[in-house]
Amino acid sequence: MSPSRIAPSSLRNKIMTADDAASLISDGSTVGMSGFTGSGYPKSVPLALAARMETAHKAGNPFRLKVWTGASTGPELDGALAKADGIEFRLPYNSDPIAREKINKGQMEYFDMHLSQVAPMAWQGFLGPLDTAVVEVSGIRADSTLIPSSSVGNNKTWLERASRIILEVNAWQSSELDGMHDIYYGTALPPNRVPIPLVRPDDRIGETGFRCDPDKIVAIVETDAPDRNAPFAKPDAVAGAIAGHLLEFFAQEVKMGRLPASLLPLQSGVGNIANAVLSGLLDGPFDNLTAYTEVIQDGMIDLLESGKMRMASATAFSLSPEAAARVNADMAKFRNKMILRPQEISNHPELIRRLGCLAMNGLIEADIYGNVNSTHVMGSRIQNGIGGSGDFARNAYVSVFMTPSTAKGGKISAIVPMASHVDHITQDVQVIVTEQGLADLRGLSPKQRAEVIIENCAHPDYRPMLADYYRRALKGSYGLQSPSLLNEALSWHQRFVETGSMLP
Amino acid sequence: MSPSRIAPSSLRNKIMTADDAASLISDGSTVGMSGFTGSGYPKSVPLALAARMETAHKAGNPFRLKVWTGASTGPELDGALAKADGIEFRLPYNSDPIAREKINKGQMEYFDMHLSQVAPMAWQGFLGPLDTAVVEVSGIRADSTLIPSSSVGNNKTWLERASRIILEVNAWQSSELDGMHDIYYGTALPPNRVPIPLVRPDDRIGETGFRCDPDKIVAIVETDAPDRNAPFAKPDAVAGAIAGHLLEFFAQEVKMGRLPASLLPLQSGVGNIANAVLSGLLDGPFDNLTAYTEVIQDGMIDLLESGKMRMASATAFSLSPEAAARVNADMAKFRNKMILRPQEISNHPELIRRLGCLAMNGLIEADIYGNVNSTHVMGSRIQNGIGGSGDFARNAYVSVFMTPSTAKGGKISAIVPMASHVDHITQDVQVIVTEQGLADLRGLSPKQRAEVIIENCAHPDYRPMLADYYRRALKGSYGLQSPSLLNEALSWHQRFVETGSMLP
Repeated sequence: MSPSRIAPSSLRNKIMTADDAASLISDGSTVGMSGFTGSGYPKSVPLALAARMETAHKAGNPFRLKVWTGASTGPELDGALAKADGIEFRLPYNSDPIAREKINKGQMEYFDMHLSQVAPMAWQGFLGPLDTAVVEVSGIRADSTLIPSSSVGNNKTWLERASRIILEVNAWQSSELDGMHDIYYGTALPPNRVPIPLVRPDDRIGETGFRCDPDKIVAIVETDAPDRNAPFAKPDAVAGAIAGHLLEFFAQEVKMGRLPASLLPLQSGVGNIANAVLSGLLDGPFDNLTAYTEVIQDGMIDLLESGKMRMASATAFSLSPEAAARVNADMAKFRNKMILRPQEISNHPELIRRLGCLAMNGLIEADIYGNVNSTHVMGSRIQNGIGGSGDFARNAYVSVFMTPSTAKGGKISAIVPMASHVDHITQDVQVIVTEQGLADLRGLSPKQRAEVIIENCAHPDYRPMLADYYRRALKGSYGLQSPSLLNEALSWHQRFVETGSMLP
Repeated sequence: MSPSRIAPSSLRNKIMTADDAASLISDGSTVGMSGFTGSGYPKSVPLALAARMETAHKAGNPFRLKVWTGASTGPELDGALAKADGIEFRLPYNSDPIAREKINKGQMEYFDMHLSQVAPMAWQGFLGPLDTAVVEVSGIRADSTLIPSSSVGNNKTWLERASRIILEVNAWQSSELDGMHDIYYGTALPPNRVPIPLVRPDDRIGETGFRCDPDKIVAIVETDAPDRNAPFAKPDAVAGAIAGHLLEFFAQEVKMGRLPASLLPLQSGVGNIANAVLSGLLDGPFDNLTAYTEVIQDGMIDLLESGKMRMASATAFSLSPEAAARVNADMAKFRNKMILRPQEISNHPELIRRLGCLAMNGLIEADIYGNVNSTHVMGSRIQNGIGGSGDFARNAYVSVFMTPSTAKGGKISAIVPMASHVDHITQDVQVIVTEQGLADLRGLSPKQRAEVIIENCAHPDYRPMLADYYRRALKGSYGLQSPSLLNEALSWHQRFVETGSMLP
């Protein structure tokens, strides 16, 4: 590692091993870590912590932490700490399979939050004090400001709120990241909040680095390790069909004069359906696109390179290894077309509504009225978390949810009589798309929505069952605003739990 | 009526009877009416319309309308039109009992919306064109601007969007209303939206009247009739206990340094529990209070008169006849302490989050994880609608839901194993209060929430049943993030529908 990554010589005596840094964190503390969608998380100190936890547990001593992050991290953080039984409480988002298993076995408490609300709630105080921040950066400037890494997340807040700071300086991150970030320092607690002066996704309203009190830094660990950077599956025919329906809808909205020809700032969840939509835009009629979203993913890199997309604003990267290598190699160029911001800003309701984002998110299931479950399989088993979907869906100009119409080889229908858990209420779900078709639910009453969803979105294996349920609910329901049969509404889920399939 | 209510002589030739005005509206049109919580709705043209509908229906001719309003209106509007079978589609809120019955019998389509979103969605265009606006005002100025009435609601948007305008000029409304309103003309469709320049509830950012193209005015009808102004029930012991728990919580938050001594702007639903809380504030330790809310109700008038509350911002009045008389008699004084704004502004997520409102809303039921049902009795029968509760709950500094722990003389528990419909997800429900106690759910995982809600909020008749369900769910649930028993979760509702009681 070049020593220039840590410019202030006064800080060099704080450089130490990950194990020495980890020894500064003790059982029961609350730790705010960096990391968002597998980017910019600390890769060394959490592994050392996990080793210390395992040693402690073998000796019969307790060692568990409350862990706060931006969103999901990587196996070196959530995976290692969960495996070591070292997380007693986790917020605000998790996608690690080991941690998920612990949560669903009741061995780890998980507080699933709207991502825009983490920083303000940490300031509000009811979450308790933050003992230590463990934050990956790509460098430390001479004036002690920190050059952020490949995600911003809640790092500004962790650095401000924590009593002590441990930094990981990761040489794997491009040194050309310097200048790309926009860290807004205008937030406050009420009654001192003011308008956030951002009116286009391109606007820079803050500083390029984190302010940091050098006296709070207790350890600096040098690393050279890649982000999680999982490969994306190539879009399959189902994803392609979903993307096709959605792009046709956007084209129709433009034609009707309800969307500008360059659309509006795109928000896109991660995954292969989202990438299929972005791929479709590469060949589509829309130019001068922008993104105001949580994560910059492979499809956006292609759009930026092609010139179809003018710029992308997010809080993190979420790239395949190939795309990460491409971006890192050419960061000085990409830097001018990308802005990474704190997640409080990337996901802020004020800004999402002002910009009029087109929100595109995935789902686990939707019911015939368009209530969407994004988090709980069979109503009780957490998959990942709500993430930013609530921030975007409620405030979007058009709120779209996309899913294949079935899962588990057809044994689960994504369209059900009643959602077994609700994350997005009907008011926040305007368009549902499956490979079967698109349901434009805007301006419809619940019964009108049910007809369109069953007809356009359900898989043919389940469509007659849904139509039959709905027809009987119209006769047997207590009220007819949102007809339902209480003793049957969740029977499909129950059948799956008992038999492994929602099909009778 | 004094002729001075209609200043421009050029408009006087448009004065006509309500029946003549109603004759300008034909079957199938979309009509945007004024009215919010029984205030400021047109009282004469809708009655004349209803009479025309009944005549048409008797002659075998169709006559139904799509009716848009601010929120609820009065019996002369929703009641009369629903009774005449004259509403085919209704948005965004209804509390009229006749209309409710039609909706729940499947005879009227009802699109239940977030109140902040009505105006921007009307602009967005997918709701279709607005044929006629029927708007109550308290006067017409010489320059053709309109002096608003006792509610603002969506009137600005109806006047702008409608092809034709019918005005009701109501002499019952105080002429001293002139100057109280603040009509913001800075909204736009994206990509042209800008920050809304409001940083305190007191701020005036608009004009005191509605702009109106006089060429679009096709009829002016003079009226002299009171608003709905339903009397409020005196707070009973249950409401008093709920208020007591909540005020104690606020005092504790102030003590912990998490709320300023003057609290933060209050948002308060209507009803006797809300009024009990406001009554409690009258004797409480908090001074210099403000309200940033939907409606100004009796309790706020008392707080304003006592000096405990500095000012109240809302979009409408919702007063008892006595309070309305008091306010009307002294409007010149109250005018300086009150601001009525468009509901797009009173309920705007940007402003609610910026101001940090303390949101206090009612509910129909909450489940043990804190999912709240505000709208659908037994999951299918609409009560009123979501109103502004979603705008406030998601963006509030503290989001409180209040309810007696039982309804129907103990036959319904307000705390249930699973909500039969969800309007507010757990992330948006931070505090639940019943007469039994208060559950502070902030920062808790679902299982931690369940324990606090069952222990603090459930009625003793239902608490052991809930504890038993939860204990068994911890063993038999598919996943343990939010344990549930799918074949039992809605059984309490089913039992109520079958037997008239949730008790076995």
